[in-house]
Amino acid sequence: MTALHPFDPLLPDEITKAITIVQKSHGPNLLFNVVSLQEPRKAEMKAWLAAPETAPKPKRVADIVAIDQNGTAHDGLVDLESGAIISWVAAPGCQPIITMEELQQVELIVRSDPRVIEQCVISGIAPEDMHKVYCDPWTIGYDKRFGSNVRLQQALMYFRPHIDDCQYQYPLDFCPIFDASTKKIIAIDVPAVRCPLSTVKPINYHPKAVQENGGYRSDIKPINITQPEGVSFQMNGHQITWQNWNIHIGFNYREGIVLNNISFNDKGTNRSLFYRLSLAEMVVPYGNPEHPHQRKHAFDLGEYGAGYMTNSLALGCDCKGSIHYLDAYFPTQAGGVRTVKNAVCIHEEDAGILFKHTDFRDDSMIVTRARKLVIQQIFTAANYEYAVQWIFHQDGTIQPEIKLTGILNTYSMAVDEDTHGWGTQVYPGVNAHNHQHLFCLRVNPEIDGPDNTVFAVDTVAADDAVGSAENPYGNAFYARRTKLATTAQGMSDYLGDTSRTWEIANTNKLNVYSKKPVAYKLVSREVPRLLPKEGSLVWKRAGFARHAVHVTKYRDDQLWPAGKHVPQTSGETSLGIPEWIGDGTESIDNTDIVLWHTFGLTHIPAPEDFPVMPAEPITLLLRPRNFFTSNPVLDVPPSYATMPSQIQEQEKAVVDATDKMSKLAFPSGKCCAKTA
Amino acid sequence: MTALHPFDPLLPDEITKAITIVQKSHGPNLLFNVVSLQEPRKAEMKAWLAAPETAPKPKRVADIVAIDQNGTAHDGLVDLESGAIISWVAAPGCQPIITMEELQQVELIVRSDPRVIEQCVISGIAPEDMHKVYCDPWTIGYDKRFGSNVRLQQALMYFRPHIDDCQYQYPLDFCPIFDASTKKIIAIDVPAVRCPLSTVKPINYHPKAVQENGGYRSDIKPINITQPEGVSFQMNGHQITWQNWNIHIGFNYREGIVLNNISFNDKGTNRSLFYRLSLAEMVVPYGNPEHPHQRKHAFDLGEYGAGYMTNSLALGCDCKGSIHYLDAYFPTQAGGVRTVKNAVCIHEEDAGILFKHTDFRDDSMIVTRARKLVIQQIFTAANYEYAVQWIFHQDGTIQPEIKLTGILNTYSMAVDEDTHGWGTQVYPGVNAHNHQHLFCLRVNPEIDGPDNTVFAVDTVAADDAVGSAENPYGNAFYARRTKLATTAQGMSDYLGDTSRTWEIANTNKLNVYSKKPVAYKLVSREVPRLLPKEGSLVWKRAGFARHAVHVTKYRDDQLWPAGKHVPQTSGETSLGIPEWIGDGTESIDNTDIVLWHTFGLTHIPAPEDFPVMPAEPITLLLRPRNFFTSNPVLDVPPSYATMPSQIQEQEKAVVDATDKMSKLAFPSGKCCAKTA
Repeated sequence: MTALHPFDPLLPDEITKAITIVQKSHGPNLLFNVVSLQEPRKAEMKAWLAAPETAPKPKRVADIVAIDQNGTAHDGLVDLESGAIISWVAAPGCQPIITMEELQQVELIVRSDPRVIEQCVISGIAPEDMHKVYCDPWTIGYDKRFGSNVRLQQALMYFRPHIDDCQYQYPLDFCPIFDASTKKIIAIDVPAVRCPLSTVKPINYHPKAVQENGGYRSDIKPINITQPEGVSFQMNGHQITWQNWNIHIGFNYREGIVLNNISFNDKGTNRSLFYRLSLAEMVVPYGNPEHPHQRKHAFDLGEYGAGYMTNSLALGCDCKGSIHYLDAYFPTQAGGVRTVKNAVCIHEEDAGILFKHTDFRDDSMIVTRARKLVIQQIFTAANYEYAVQWIFHQDGTIQPEIKLTGILNTYSMAVDEDTHGWGTQVYPGVNAHNHQHLFCLRVNPEIDGPDNTVFAVDTVAADDAVGSAENPYGNAFYARRTKLATTAQGMSDYLGDTSRTWEIANTNKLNVYSKKPVAYKLVSREVPRLLPKEGSLVWKRAGFARHAVHVTKYRDDQLWPAGKHVPQTSGETSLGIPEWIGDGTESIDNTDIVLWHTFGLTHIPAPEDFPVMPAEPITLLLRPRNFFTSNPVLDVPPSYATMPSQIQEQEKAVVDATDKMSKLAFPSGKCCAKTA
Repeated sequence: MTALHPFDPLLPDEITKAITIVQKSHGPNLLFNVVSLQEPRKAEMKAWLAAPETAPKPKRVADIVAIDQNGTAHDGLVDLESGAIISWVAAPGCQPIITMEELQQVELIVRSDPRVIEQCVISGIAPEDMHKVYCDPWTIGYDKRFGSNVRLQQALMYFRPHIDDCQYQYPLDFCPIFDASTKKIIAIDVPAVRCPLSTVKPINYHPKAVQENGGYRSDIKPINITQPEGVSFQMNGHQITWQNWNIHIGFNYREGIVLNNISFNDKGTNRSLFYRLSLAEMVVPYGNPEHPHQRKHAFDLGEYGAGYMTNSLALGCDCKGSIHYLDAYFPTQAGGVRTVKNAVCIHEEDAGILFKHTDFRDDSMIVTRARKLVIQQIFTAANYEYAVQWIFHQDGTIQPEIKLTGILNTYSMAVDEDTHGWGTQVYPGVNAHNHQHLFCLRVNPEIDGPDNTVFAVDTVAADDAVGSAENPYGNAFYARRTKLATTAQGMSDYLGDTSRTWEIANTNKLNVYSKKPVAYKLVSREVPRLLPKEGSLVWKRAGFARHAVHVTKYRDDQLWPAGKHVPQTSGETSLGIPEWIGDGTESIDNTDIVLWHTFGLTHIPAPEDFPVMPAEPITLLLRPRNFFTSNPVLDVPPSYATMPSQIQEQEKAVVDATDKMSKLAFPSGKCCAKTA
């Protein structure tokens, strides 16, 4: 265990040890929803990182959430070295995150419940076809009829005529409510006007269906991507070193990938950038106002977990080239260990032109190709998949990118019925409701040191009128920087008009040339507002989504922007960020801060998205600005370079010997030839 | 000549023929600025495209702009079949586009001009070092002291201590004005307070400098991209067929790449999408209000030409894999032909996951990889380079993407002098002024037919209050579509708050499932406002940049949004789009329309951008919405697929035999194994 880095996720042995310790004290009948690393207290961790040889190494502590026989949740901490239970606190009325096991158990119970069978029959399904009835169990979100004390799931119902059929094309119109403690259906929401089961022919994406329907296209020739000398990065356990980057790659049940202690080697000086980066929460509100669709607003991370739902990438060939993988380990509810093989994949990609310039006088030129590093996971949230890529560029840019694919959540409708604009008929009898995907990026910056400040930056015209002495030609414009000095000011909205960005700056260090604070700039353009209105259930529960940016002072354990236990929260009071902002007077100026950024997209479905969605990417950038004193990638070998003096003297161009492929395009060797 | 497609650019023989015909009539002393294809009249062309066997094939016509001995421009048209000069019209007071030859001639004259030498000496340059003085000649834009009748260039001045030094690090503070007819310097703008030549040591990006400064990094292992069976597209002259796409790839002096007659084969039906797509103009206003920097607002396309400035991609290895190239042919001013070898490159790239879905019940899953087609040119506008990629996706999406790289335009400053926020000191004594890059995309749509309509689409909350009967939970939201029915309404701004998009719809055809008009949606998020104020010189000259979207009725020859002859236009009256919009009453509803979209970015420089900029991409999407009746890429072979029935029966998964590379990651063959 001594070889473990304090940020490393718990190993199977550690999970088992923590569970054994808890079971010894609190009995064998607990259901374990969470056994995960409690990340080291930051002060302690910073001390150790600064002096790993001399400072005490932070202890391994397990963060535990378990449900007892009475259905009461408990939050616990176990010291894995001493074996001591540090704390064990009941959390009555809280519903912990829902595990895959809990999701898996609903369908069988739904299928055998007499009242569900009755509803299926009303829909037009024969009782002997109940094995063709499927459900996607979701947390109920919050339904005031049931409150927070009973652990519930709502079962979104579907029929699959054939086991291989796309499930989402035959939605059913009723919604059973499942009680996890009694394992019973306690209610069924049934609409006043019934919608019988669709009888249209299926539309499928599986190979057999495609083959029966004209077959696969045969005009795609292979593109082979190989790395005969292997990868350019080095792994030391969970730590990666690549092209001046140093990053610890963690993984937990909730956020999935967590990146810690990110630094950049700037000509021999290791400069800190971010203490921690993650996707910390998301919410997917649906826009149909009718009951019970208001309950469809999944907090996929807080309610189900991007870790728990993550794909084993051993099952699919999701990347090309040479790939490095990391496994993930989770508890089972009974106290065992579940392994997700290849939960994280790490690989490099060619990234096109890094920089190029040609002198128009003599065609002397340089062109240098870029590389990127991709740290990826893909998680399946029932119908949707989210491919989360953390992309690192050689020039210091970090680019989180999420590809949305998978299948639309759908609801039943009569064929060609009016959807009233709340959804789209994507296939006859299939209504895909409008929805948003709003992600919350959590950024604990450490730009050249622990004390940082956020500025909203707007590019604006000068105030001075056209023709004035200050602005004679009317062309003056500049970047207006507004300091977010308090948590109230830290609530900042996106402004498309001024191409607003946010700078995370260290005002204690100025760039020696520009005299501006060293900074990383958040450039994010897909920033829709939360469309559920102020005061709505979603608005109350998803406080983090009210503004594009919130900034809070750093505190250990303020990790979850919608609260720790998210299922069945009422939003009264709003948990997470709204709590931490408090009265808004706390200073966030030149201190250890957390920036929370909500971004995403609003999805008005269309038939193109069905029966499975072509991936739609959404991305943003964290870019160094005034951080380096010059372009930090000048020393990346060019694929082609000639200097004016070489042109003058008819010398040969410089061609990078490692870049073997570019020359393929020039079989005759013309690549290196002079201008004709 | 019969094999030529009417959209094909002029061949060298045709250029020569046109020039010979004109010289025969108008004498040998003309300077040819433009000899380019006059694209066929649309009505005629549409008739021929509809019935190429029977309808008359549009004639080849050369569009000519020439300057006579008196400096007067002439616009001409030559029928290349009959040899007739169709028209020849003097355009007094108009300054045609500036050619590379015109740009090339300024520097030598500047170097030998006594008053320039005098200014250089004042700056601190010895007279014998005049060969180290360089200038980037720009059109003067518009300077009311000189007007439009004399053909002028302004010379932005630099010193290069060594021939290989980056030119932009030693800017000089004065600006000679060059008269193209007399080939003389007619004036020099000199600032009141002089700034002597910087004496700081150079910062360079060329190989020798890097090698002297620590050398190149040696930790990048090769990534080889090969296509052993060749490309998946077919070229027929300038026409390409790839993954259901059909596109004619043209190229001209001004816009560079022009895409015509774009259609998509939808399950055997060839459906028209766009009659013509191009980047039609751009403007780069600088934000420093002091004279003469207001003159820095290059219209790179209208004033210099993205074709004329395009790189020969034979000189640099700018792509990987198997590349197809197209050459470009231009006239020389004297009447010869200039060939740009490999002006356009065409290749495929792997594009990650096309779609994926896993059933959480049994881990049955499908993952299919995407391909994209890239049609690229790169042009050098003095200091900057623009890599313009037209990316086509298998799912019907068109993604124009521009990578900005090259070098900042710089001006002199005393070391550490205050830039007053109008620029940034990116290196001691180097002031890079704030600027915008605003591109104008020209879209002549033909979405399933010639008559189209544009809608602004805003995603908004329902009006009904939280708790009302219509919106009990407050979660209702929808897409509000606003028809742009007249050219006045067609002036549409970006709204970040509502994630505004624009739909180009054919209201005569409804999607059979969604009942919404078939459409392509313009999704563009980098849409800064024109920052030079209303009434400013830039605002007057760049009418196209006043709004994110303009829509006009299609007319032959309305191609240039800032006017045909852009250099030295005063903007009084505003040429191009403002003229065509007129009183704003013309209908653009359900007719042949042109959508003009201005997008780009505002660049506040930083030291990271110097001495050469890491590429910064800007992109937008044209996406099919309600155009197809289902996901159009279901028949792309998956790289991995298992169906629930196969899991149940322990059958083998389907693995695409052509996707050889994905399995590299799984040397043990685990890729195809069952879940453990």
